[in-house]
Amino acid sequence: MSSTDKSTSTSTDRCADWIAVDWGTSRMRAWAMTDDGITLASTSSDKGMGSLAPHQFEAALLDAISPWLNPGRTTPVVACGMVGARQGWVEAAYRAVPCAPAGELMSVAVADSRIAVYLCPGLKQQTPADVMRGEETQVAGLLAAHPGFEGVVCLPGTHSKWVRVHEGQLTAFQTFMTGELYALLATQSVLRHSVAAQGWDDAAFAGAIATALQNPADVSGRLFSLRAEALLADLAPQTARARLSGYVIGLELAAARAYWDGQPVAIIGATQLGLHYSQGLQQLGAQSDIHDGEALTLKGLHAAYQQMTGD
Amino acid sequence: MSSTDKSTSTSTDRCADWIAVDWGTSRMRAWAMTDDGITLASTSSDKGMGSLAPHQFEAALLDAISPWLNPGRTTPVVACGMVGARQGWVEAAYRAVPCAPAGELMSVAVADSRIAVYLCPGLKQQTPADVMRGEETQVAGLLAAHPGFEGVVCLPGTHSKWVRVHEGQLTAFQTFMTGELYALLATQSVLRHSVAAQGWDDAAFAGAIATALQNPADVSGRLFSLRAEALLADLAPQTARARLSGYVIGLELAAARAYWDGQPVAIIGATQLGLHYSQGLQQLGAQSDIHDGEALTLKGLHAAYQQMTGD
Repeated sequence: MSSTDKSTSTSTDRCADWIAVDWGTSRMRAWAMTDDGITLASTSSDKGMGSLAPHQFEAALLDAISPWLNPGRTTPVVACGMVGARQGWVEAAYRAVPCAPAGELMSVAVADSRIAVYLCPGLKQQTPADVMRGEETQVAGLLAAHPGFEGVVCLPGTHSKWVRVHEGQLTAFQTFMTGELYALLATQSVLRHSVAAQGWDDAAFAGAIATALQNPADVSGRLFSLRAEALLADLAPQTARARLSGYVIGLELAAARAYWDGQPVAIIGATQLGLHYSQGLQQLGAQSDIHDGEALTLKGLHAAYQQMTGD
Repeated sequence: MSSTDKSTSTSTDRCADWIAVDWGTSRMRAWAMTDDGITLASTSSDKGMGSLAPHQFEAALLDAISPWLNPGRTTPVVACGMVGARQGWVEAAYRAVPCAPAGELMSVAVADSRIAVYLCPGLKQQTPADVMRGEETQVAGLLAAHPGFEGVVCLPGTHSKWVRVHEGQLTAFQTFMTGELYALLATQSVLRHSVAAQGWDDAAFAGAIATALQNPADVSGRLFSLRAEALLADLAPQTARARLSGYVIGLELAAARAYWDGQPVAIIGATQLGLHYSQGLQQLGAQSDIHDGEALTLKGLHAAYQQMTGD
């Protein structure tokens, strides 16, 4: 993604029946949709929740979607993600698991009569304490695409989530700060001198996964070794990158063993990262399928839209 | 420490016999010393190695110590720490363990005839790869203060070190990025919203230490819980602080078990952090003594000065 305001945009000759929005902390993405779930156009901006005060959300939204609006009618907008957080536009209270992934939408008061805005609520778990905002919509999309899915969903990312699905309900989940930890170590810590921004080493990644699974505590001591090996033995920066990634993903897989052990795993994220999780799981004898995240977000938002309109 | 240039300074009526310097990445501290190891005066500045190019070190040093110099003679200056790193003033090549903590000093060419500058070399270990610069001088100070010391030395900090000492030699060591990891998580990650900068909770710290020792991988999943508990259950920020500290220190103690298990541990650092390490070790049934870090740095630099002058 570029850092320009609107980084991608496609136009459409007809107005949207409804508009789907994935509004995260750092970015907002929107799609002009038909009632039957066809995408007519899409756009993306860097006006994420984290950069907006509550009174700025409506203008940021209109700035992105106004070309798709019909002045003569009110177009529903269904949004998921951090937009519904306490620090977002309006707080959409968490729903408690166990529950279905999609719940009643939160209506937001807006000034412009061309739009009606609805936010997807996030999910919470009291013990162990945990929360999610946005991932529940992707799980709803997975269930819409694969009715009757039973098993475990893994959503790798800044804050990776593992979710248990049983009889159409999310029954438990756990969040790992793996992506954020990786980014902090690779770009802010002393390891930034030794870890490449690109490149990969499959054997180094697999070795680090094995270390983390066999002796998770060792990871804490292996991190500085990446720096020391760079100083003493010219460790290749792309090898250091793969090893660091393997250590933090391996720690997550070690802690999430109760989720993936003996269960089919659906990984949401058809990205390099999703592939690395899949490789790590395969190394541990677990099978996984990879699903495209954007497609499932759209399916989940479409399911929420249909539920709201009673379709 | 304040962020002004010289944050502490005391004056002396007599010139120094020699000058001790602890020159780290972010700060430089210097002491005017007598031949028999008495401190006459001290000063400290924020001109750490990280902010200086090689040609700027001499001026930074003179700026701090010139009041202590006798224009009629050359005063020896003995410095330890990152000043001897590849990115420092002049690289003082690592010595390989096993070895005595103090080795031959590296002479640095200077323009000012009032000073002669010597750098303490750091230590390296080939397998597992590891390095230190500065801590070896504190261990030398410990051995000077406690001749015949046998056992394990723990130096908590940004990059904590565990060092095995046998028959006056450092035989092995391991570095943990615990302090840096804590700082990144507490101030740069999503946890910054939930973790206090001050305050403490002994029971939360002890509980987190126990969790990390019993199941190290779990720490990876417990981190985000600090944020979720703050959102869902108003977790007190000082409790979150103690728990985060217990998780990262606990991971280190779990990985360093081979060092402290059944061995007397000398903790260098008479600080709140040193006390927390001591409490954590006590909880695990290990005994430790706490030693003042600055005093041992001075003893170590004094031993290096004596070795150089043949005293």
